Amino acid sequence: MRRSVIGSAKALSNRSCQNHWNVLLLRPLASSPSRFLSSTSVLDSPPPPPSSMLPVSLDNINPKVLKCEYAVRGEIVTLAQALQEELKSKPGSHPFDEILYCNIGNPQSLGQQPITFFREVLALCDHPSILDRSETQGLFSADAIERAWQILDQIPGRATGAYSHSQGIKGLRDTIAAGIEARDGFPADPNDIFLTDGASPAVHMMMQLLIRSEKDGILCPIPQYPLYSASIALHGGALVPYYLDEATGWGLEVSELKKQLADAKSKGITPRALVVINPGNPTGQVLAEDNQRGIVEFCKQEGLVLLADEVYQENVYVPEKKFDSFKKVARSMGYGEKDISLVSFQSVSKGYYGECGKRGGYMEVTGFGPEIREQIYKVASVNLCSNISGQILASLVMSPPKVGDESYESYSAEKDGILSSLARRAKTLEDAFNNLEGVTCNKAEGAMYLFPCICLPEKAIKAAEAAKTAPDNFYCRRLLNATGIVFVPGSGFGQLPGTWHFRCTILPQEDKIPAVVSRLTEFHKSFMDEFRD
Amino acid sequence: MRRSVIGSAKALSNRSCQNHWNVLLLRPLASSPSRFLSSTSVLDSPPPPPSSMLPVSLDNINPKVLKCEYAVRGEIVTLAQALQEELKSKPGSHPFDEILYCNIGNPQSLGQQPITFFREVLALCDHPSILDRSETQGLFSADAIERAWQILDQIPGRATGAYSHSQGIKGLRDTIAAGIEARDGFPADPNDIFLTDGASPAVHMMMQLLIRSEKDGILCPIPQYPLYSASIALHGGALVPYYLDEATGWGLEVSELKKQLADAKSKGITPRALVVINPGNPTGQVLAEDNQRGIVEFCKQEGLVLLADEVYQENVYVPEKKFDSFKKVARSMGYGEKDISLVSFQSVSKGYYGECGKRGGYMEVTGFGPEIREQIYKVASVNLCSNISGQILASLVMSPPKVGDESYESYSAEKDGILSSLARRAKTLEDAFNNLEGVTCNKAEGAMYLFPCICLPEKAIKAAEAAKTAPDNFYCRRLLNATGIVFVPGSGFGQLPGTWHFRCTILPQEDKIPAVVSRLTEFHKSFMDEFRD
Repeated sequence: MRRSVIGSAKALSNRSCQNHWNVLLLRPLASSPSRFLSSTSVLDSPPPPPSSMLPVSLDNINPKVLKCEYAVRGEIVTLAQALQEELKSKPGSHPFDEILYCNIGNPQSLGQQPITFFREVLALCDHPSILDRSETQGLFSADAIERAWQILDQIPGRATGAYSHSQGIKGLRDTIAAGIEARDGFPADPNDIFLTDGASPAVHMMMQLLIRSEKDGILCPIPQYPLYSASIALHGGALVPYYLDEATGWGLEVSELKKQLADAKSKGITPRALVVINPGNPTGQVLAEDNQRGIVEFCKQEGLVLLADEVYQENVYVPEKKFDSFKKVARSMGYGEKDISLVSFQSVSKGYYGECGKRGGYMEVTGFGPEIREQIYKVASVNLCSNISGQILASLVMSPPKVGDESYESYSAEKDGILSSLARRAKTLEDAFNNLEGVTCNKAEGAMYLFPCICLPEKAIKAAEAAKTAPDNFYCRRLLNATGIVFVPGSGFGQLPGTWHFRCTILPQEDKIPAVVSRLTEFHKSFMDEFRD
Repeated sequence: MRRSVIGSAKALSNRSCQNHWNVLLLRPLASSPSRFLSSTSVLDSPPPPPSSMLPVSLDNINPKVLKCEYAVRGEIVTLAQALQEELKSKPGSHPFDEILYCNIGNPQSLGQQPITFFREVLALCDHPSILDRSETQGLFSADAIERAWQILDQIPGRATGAYSHSQGIKGLRDTIAAGIEARDGFPADPNDIFLTDGASPAVHMMMQLLIRSEKDGILCPIPQYPLYSASIALHGGALVPYYLDEATGWGLEVSELKKQLADAKSKGITPRALVVINPGNPTGQVLAEDNQRGIVEFCKQEGLVLLADEVYQENVYVPEKKFDSFKKVARSMGYGEKDISLVSFQSVSKGYYGECGKRGGYMEVTGFGPEIREQIYKVASVNLCSNISGQILASLVMSPPKVGDESYESYSAEKDGILSSLARRAKTLEDAFNNLEGVTCNKAEGAMYLFPCICLPEKAIKAAEAAKTAPDNFYCRRLLNATGIVFVPGSGFGQLPGTWHFRCTILPQEDKIPAVVSRLTEFHKSFMDEFRD
């Protein structure tokens, strides 16, 4: 741990910052989930007095709900929404004329257009009675019409308004399994696929299955996407943090996994699973295959379920890296169904499609005995099934138009346009951050985020203390009030104690990026001037 | 309790059955949730041996998951699916040529057609770029086009592919609140609405909020829809049963609520909430307003949250009954936001629309302080939002076409056709059940189900015992194997100990009803002949 902290510190150029870090190294590193989560609290004002005539109060609700935090939609975002309302009702009331949301991976909310082919198919499946009409030929591409027919034929009774099989429509799972096979070069079984309303419910299902008490631990990267800390808190487990090494581009070192595993065990925690987010959220790194092999080996030896968040599998922006699924890596090591328990999460919300509002996704569940599969099926059944449009879309993203299809060219142009633009935006923002005093930013190799480290002057840290908030939250709130830019403070994701970060998405449309850069740069200069030691 | 049991027994004509009941009255009534749930076990065969090389086994998963049961998709349905496969691969292999699914409220899976107007709007919102095209005028009704524009204008950036506000799109919540106001004659606040992927996730959210441990109790009707027992089991609470009185048409008596509440308290259980399903599932009764007032008063006095499952609010089939929401009843008693905590669940899966696959729904949350609302909002935020098509559909069912709209006539014809057909099917099946030896069936006043009581001969009960299964499960399995008809055994919903029931939906299309009746009647006769004492 010490090594990587020192490594990270070296990466920072600001001298006073290094001193600050050295002081902080004397503090013990947080490792219990409650301690970790306490640092994410963003409630600055005391809660309102309970409505005493009513039966439910903060004193008598499930404490696991109280403990759960989700900063991506936390205090800063609530403030941003309030500012937006003010701008609407009182134009000119703030020193900016629009809110620039960089807080959440929600591409279409910022103007990204959906992929036409996917939407054509969805519309036709929603209203199949127009499929036979002549006007439809003029409105929809021929391959979209053909695909809609194919999909309808896979749905019993062509009933898109019926509950499906609890795991999702079998024909769509066949398509997805074929897509996984084509991606990995290893077989995939449609019976391993559980279609879900986005990846989040799938993560909850696995946490629910594995966590028995606060003595069951889930190894999670720090920084992490706060769905994991929230889900572990809601299910009453222990988050066992492992720290990504900022100095090596958010490297995931097996030595760190071993150290944290031993530490957790020494505290009486039973580690059950390891969460890996690849490409990383909020950190944007893409794991090398060799690294992945080490992680697979670690999970196998330690008897951990590998929970692989692979929702950014299509979001890789640098030529020197490529995405390999953990299943491909495990299979290429010769590990099969009997050797390693592995769950891969995928979502229609990410990639180049960014269809967040459709809530489609799946998990591929391998390496669990039939008796456990039956339990997962049962829990899936309680909610009957995921939404059918999301199911259809999940099959489409795993089997897009192919060369020769009528839509192929326009589809490719849309896809490449989005991905190359994201790569440009990532680079521009990365450079902008690295040009700020006291800020260092790793490369966004993939995903949709940058997670720069900001070395805050002591005076700013004291001012935050006086304002009863975390320093990174203090910075983000000031930034928002001055510029309308919405970042999420690093404390919402977890960070090495005493370091401060924020997450910035690369999603504002390209014509907005210059405004983000110039407003941020100007704000940062004046902030540093105000608080420089 | 004794009174209602005797009342129910009187309603039965079969003499040996009465004797049987009298014996059973000596047994204590099950009241702990674990005892209740143990009777729902449908796993007859021993589980396969654990896959010992893998880390996850039945011995080390969350015991709450093990405890959860969901009979609507349980053993009988799994058997039905296997038979269906056999019929496909080996036609003629069974004494029937199709499976008649009467197990689940899934209308479109049995041929019910979606409401055209709703699907037109959904398709246009999925693919808005065709809204301006001239061909669209020929394919879609004018008011569907207009409504799609209205909805798109309510969505920030017209982005149907973006995550929405965690509670759902504000404009759609405005529409829903207006629909509730029009229904009830009392104000509804869009900020009280939480849009969800069907009603099930909303129920889970409330259980998660309220249940702290196995000492927290949720009063549930018996029989109940097993989502409730499953959700309480998954969240580790105690199901406190209250029995509906079969003799008075599944009456819900406040005296029974008081008795079970006192009983639970004497066992150290803290009752937190009362679940009422109105119209009833699986029981089909519609509560009278006077009864609802008594329930509201009970919740107010006992400090219980009233969880009102009102998903069948459009499914009322008898002229002497009508649906009143619990909120309307509470408000008409003068109880406001400060007096009673009330959550109403609604879904697009039921009603005349039956859009199960769209997974749309909402809960209206009233009578909770702002500090608790913030907690509910936070939990909703962890999953980001419900699917946008489901959100749109939830707004549509609460604001369908009005007199004068181009679609109004066809919409009304579709709606009335479905509801009047459901009423006819309910009556035909009810009569058929009442014509069977030893079977009594209450009226389906509403919802989509009948829940007849079957007085099984002692010999059949012994045969079930020998087959290591519950008598109602034994009957349903025999019925399925002989006829292809799929009922759900009453033990999946809970029933007065020693009584046996099954749930039958009224959803097979009208041309299939004669086959259900004749096959059932023939089977039942031969079953009774075989096992008559």
